[in-house]
Amino acid sequence: MELSSESSIGIFDSGLGGLTVMKAIQQLLPGENLVYLGDTAHFPYGSKNPNLILEYSIQNISFLLQQNIKAIVLACHTVCSYAWDALQKRFDLPLIGVQLPTIEEVVRRSPKGKIVILGTKGTILSKRYTLLLKQRLPSVEILSIPFQILVHLLEEGYIEHSLISSIIAEHLSHLKDVEIDMVILGCTHFPLVEREIRNCFTNATHILDPGVLCAEAIKKELIQKNLLNFTTSTPLRRFFVSEDREQFHLLGGRFLGYPIEEVRVMGSPL
Amino acid sequence: MELSSESSIGIFDSGLGGLTVMKAIQQLLPGENLVYLGDTAHFPYGSKNPNLILEYSIQNISFLLQQNIKAIVLACHTVCSYAWDALQKRFDLPLIGVQLPTIEEVVRRSPKGKIVILGTKGTILSKRYTLLLKQRLPSVEILSIPFQILVHLLEEGYIEHSLISSIIAEHLSHLKDVEIDMVILGCTHFPLVEREIRNCFTNATHILDPGVLCAEAIKKELIQKNLLNFTTSTPLRRFFVSEDREQFHLLGGRFLGYPIEEVRVMGSPL
Repeated sequence: MELSSESSIGIFDSGLGGLTVMKAIQQLLPGENLVYLGDTAHFPYGSKNPNLILEYSIQNISFLLQQNIKAIVLACHTVCSYAWDALQKRFDLPLIGVQLPTIEEVVRRSPKGKIVILGTKGTILSKRYTLLLKQRLPSVEILSIPFQILVHLLEEGYIEHSLISSIIAEHLSHLKDVEIDMVILGCTHFPLVEREIRNCFTNATHILDPGVLCAEAIKKELIQKNLLNFTTSTPLRRFFVSEDREQFHLLGGRFLGYPIEEVRVMGSPL
Repeated sequence: MELSSESSIGIFDSGLGGLTVMKAIQQLLPGENLVYLGDTAHFPYGSKNPNLILEYSIQNISFLLQQNIKAIVLACHTVCSYAWDALQKRFDLPLIGVQLPTIEEVVRRSPKGKIVILGTKGTILSKRYTLLLKQRLPSVEILSIPFQILVHLLEEGYIEHSLISSIIAEHLSHLKDVEIDMVILGCTHFPLVEREIRNCFTNATHILDPGVLCAEAIKKELIQKNLLNFTTSTPLRRFFVSEDREQFHLLGGRFLGYPIEEVRVMGSPL
C-alpha cells in the first residue's frame, strides 16, 4: 500500500479514553488529519480476555484502514499489553502504541526509586509493563496497581467531580509514606485526573502521560517515513463509534478539550 | 425432560448481582438445591446490545441444563428486558424472571402516585418495565432512571462505603421534592444499597425488591408443578463463573450473606 502524507492518522480505543491521546497528538501535530474510533460496543477492554481484545483490535484496524490511513495509533494500554505483537505481525503500516514510548522514557530518565503503574485490570494482570521495564531496568522496583473503577467513573462523565478525588485518594492511600520516583498513567482515561493523582504523591514524583510520549513517537515515525503532513488546509477530525453515538458526543469534548461536531456509527451510511 | 423435585434451581446473572436473588430464594426456600452461574466474562450485560444479551443467556441456560436442573431463574433485569420472550420460546422447563413478578406486585398494590424504576442502562433503554406497567396501569406516571455506575461500584466491592451514599444521594437529588409512591430496585445489585436508596425517599415510599418477589413466584411455580423439594438432606449450593473465580470468591459472600466455599470456572474439570 502506498502511504501518503495527506492521509489520516487512525486512532482507536474501547471508548472515550483514547481521546486524551488524540488531544496530545493534535497538540504536537496540529496539521495532521485524524480519525478516531471508539469501540464503545465492547467497552471496557480493561476487563476482557486477551483473545477478545485481539479480535476487537483487528476489527478496529480493519475499519480504520478503509479511511485512507497512513499510521495507526493503539490508544489503549490493554490493547498494547495483550495484542501488540500479534497486531505488528498482521498489519504492514506503521503502528504506534502508548506502551513502548513510555518504556523508553522511563529508561531515559533512569529512575532512582520505585515506579507506580496505574492501569486497568487487564493491563495490570498482563504484567506486560513490568516485564518490559524489568528487561531494561532489572533492579527497579515496580508497584502495579489496577484501578478499573476509575475507568468506569470517567467514562460515565464523573470528571472534575468531588467524588473522584476521594476515590483516588483512598485507592492510593497505602502509598502515602512510600517514596515513589515515577507514576505511569497506564490507562488513557487517567490523564483526565492527573491533578488528583498528582496530589497523592510528593512534588519529587514524576507523572508520565503516555499519550504525550506516544505523540512524540508518532512524530518521529512520520518524519522518518517522510509522511508528515505539511499542507496548510484545515485538518480533518473524524469520529466513529461502534454504538451509542449520543454518549460519546456528549462527553467526548470533555476528554478532547473542544466540542465534537459529528460522531458516526461504524458501518452506518454517511 | 422429566423434572425431579430433588433437582436444582439454576440461577444466572452477568456477575455477582444475581446473588441477591439467590439470597432471597434460599431465605424463602431453604431446602432447595441451588446452582448459580455468574457470566463474569461478559459482565456487565447492562451496557451490551440485545443480540449479545440473548446469545449469552442461551449459553448460560445451556450450561445450567447440564447441572440437573428443574427450573431456571433469570436473575438479571437486563436479560428479562431484552431476552424474555425468545428464551421462553426456546426452552421448555420453567423459567422465572425478576421482572414479571414485580409488575404483578406493582399492580396488586395499585399505586396512587409516581413510580421510579432504577436500572442498568440496558434495562432503562429497553423501556420494557414502562411498557409492561403501562399496559396494566395506563394512567400511572413512571420515572425511569439509569444508574449504570452504581452497578460497577458494587461489583468492584464498594459496598457499605461512604462514597456509595454520596453517589446515590447525588444521582437521585432531582427527586427530592417529588412525591414517589414506589421505587423498583430494577437491577439485582441494588438491594445491597436499599438503605442508601431508602434515604433518598420519604417514609411513605415503598421500595420493591424484585428478588424477593421472584423467590415467591418460584415457590408458587414449584408448588403448582409439584416440584418443591421436601427432602431433609443438606441442600447443595454450587457456584460457577465464566472467568475470574477469585474476584467472585472474594466478594460473593458480601452479596449472599455467607462466605462462598468453592467457585468453579464453567467448562473446567471438576
